[in-house]
Amino acid sequence: MNSRRRFIKHAAVGSAMALSLPDIVAAAIPNNIAKVRLRQEATILFQGDSITDAGRNRDIKEPNNSSALGRGYAFLAAAELLHNFASLKLNIHNRGISGNKVYQLAERWEEDCLKIKPDVLSILIGVNDYWHKRNGNYDGTVATYRNDYMALIERTKKALPNVTLIICEPFAIPGTKAVDNTWFPEFNEYQTAAREVADRFDAVFIPFQSVFDKAMEKAPGDYWAPDGVHPSIAGAQLMATTWMQIVAR
Amino acid sequence: MNSRRRFIKHAAVGSAMALSLPDIVAAAIPNNIAKVRLRQEATILFQGDSITDAGRNRDIKEPNNSSALGRGYAFLAAAELLHNFASLKLNIHNRGISGNKVYQLAERWEEDCLKIKPDVLSILIGVNDYWHKRNGNYDGTVATYRNDYMALIERTKKALPNVTLIICEPFAIPGTKAVDNTWFPEFNEYQTAAREVADRFDAVFIPFQSVFDKAMEKAPGDYWAPDGVHPSIAGAQLMATTWMQIVAR
Repeated sequence: MNSRRRFIKHAAVGSAMALSLPDIVAAAIPNNIAKVRLRQEATILFQGDSITDAGRNRDIKEPNNSSALGRGYAFLAAAELLHNFASLKLNIHNRGISGNKVYQLAERWEEDCLKIKPDVLSILIGVNDYWHKRNGNYDGTVATYRNDYMALIERTKKALPNVTLIICEPFAIPGTKAVDNTWFPEFNEYQTAAREVADRFDAVFIPFQSVFDKAMEKAPGDYWAPDGVHPSIAGAQLMATTWMQIVAR
Repeated sequence: MNSRRRFIKHAAVGSAMALSLPDIVAAAIPNNIAKVRLRQEATILFQGDSITDAGRNRDIKEPNNSSALGRGYAFLAAAELLHNFASLKLNIHNRGISGNKVYQLAERWEEDCLKIKPDVLSILIGVNDYWHKRNGNYDGTVATYRNDYMALIERTKKALPNVTLIICEPFAIPGTKAVDNTWFPEFNEYQTAAREVADRFDAVFIPFQSVFDKAMEKAPGDYWAPDGVHPSIAGAQLMATTWMQIVAR
């Protein structure tokens, strides 16, 4: 909870509108975080559900291909990475698949993660684990989510002991087409579970919920994600800008 | 030529590798440039050829749609604009079409520009005007390019007297699949013509050739544009980052 407390303290310094969006993003990421250092020719893999997938062409397996990276935060972060760190010759993949929950990542993990041997692995998963249960289409609970997620990362660390892990907080924006206040506090338990996974495995944790919460001071929730789950272009850029904050320059 | 001279002066201050990519981008844009100020609900239109098109879905006409914006610099700049200026509620369109030369913009200008009534119009056109002539597939010359471009902007200014114009320098990167040194100095004449159009109509001019030339100190030409004409993801981000420099914060 350290980063959230720090964030709230930062936000309280001025009036709400005194913070610009870059300030908001910076304030959500603690200063004392261990930043990700990228090595020459590092392989970076984005994993997750539809938010990561974002309409990517799943037939293309080569890195740094714009169709294969989709139209979401993974593509936008990849563009900044490939631009800002041109001399490193990075290899960036996206293997997000729409609708996925943690157990579905596990089913395809050998092919879609371990074989790719990422140096940096960024995962955003959890909104469907809650949403599909809520809709009556899935009988997993928050305990299922936590246990499956812990097992997935344990397996990953065993296969790739030197991997740098980034766990992204699942988020939901109330007052939108698909999300209202009845998502909370139950959905918060999934967010806490994701943070516990990050803490247990010494991963970098990206607090996306705080970032979206603060962004709503600039524009309403549906500006950032019309249905409360899938980001608009602006929301995807907000995520990419936040993601870039955890990379050492 | 003022901005190029200034750029060379900047670059000469340190050794080549002392400039980071953001420095390179900033140095290519003169400090005293009149920056573009965006008003509430402004409509921004990106126009041009394949570099602007970048695989966009041409059936979608609504603004701020990620499929309709393509996978190139226009999408990446749109993402930054929609994120950085969330409270403005901008409307961003892409109407680039692969293969276009200036006269082909003119043919579809009523529908694909004037009817959209942009407040800010950004045009990148010219590489095909030279390339197709060079290949023997087009008999227009640099005079055709200059005259057609002048006429197009005159017509635009008449229909939209308050439009803010951005003219992007066409660029080509030698030592790549499709471009070698025999493109120059003839291709430079097209770049000079684009600058003359910008000067005559008081448009902002974006010197993309200088930006790509300097970026080659970080990574080889084909890293930024494999065929020397169509940017990679990194090249597209380089363009978007440069484009964003001319917008007032």
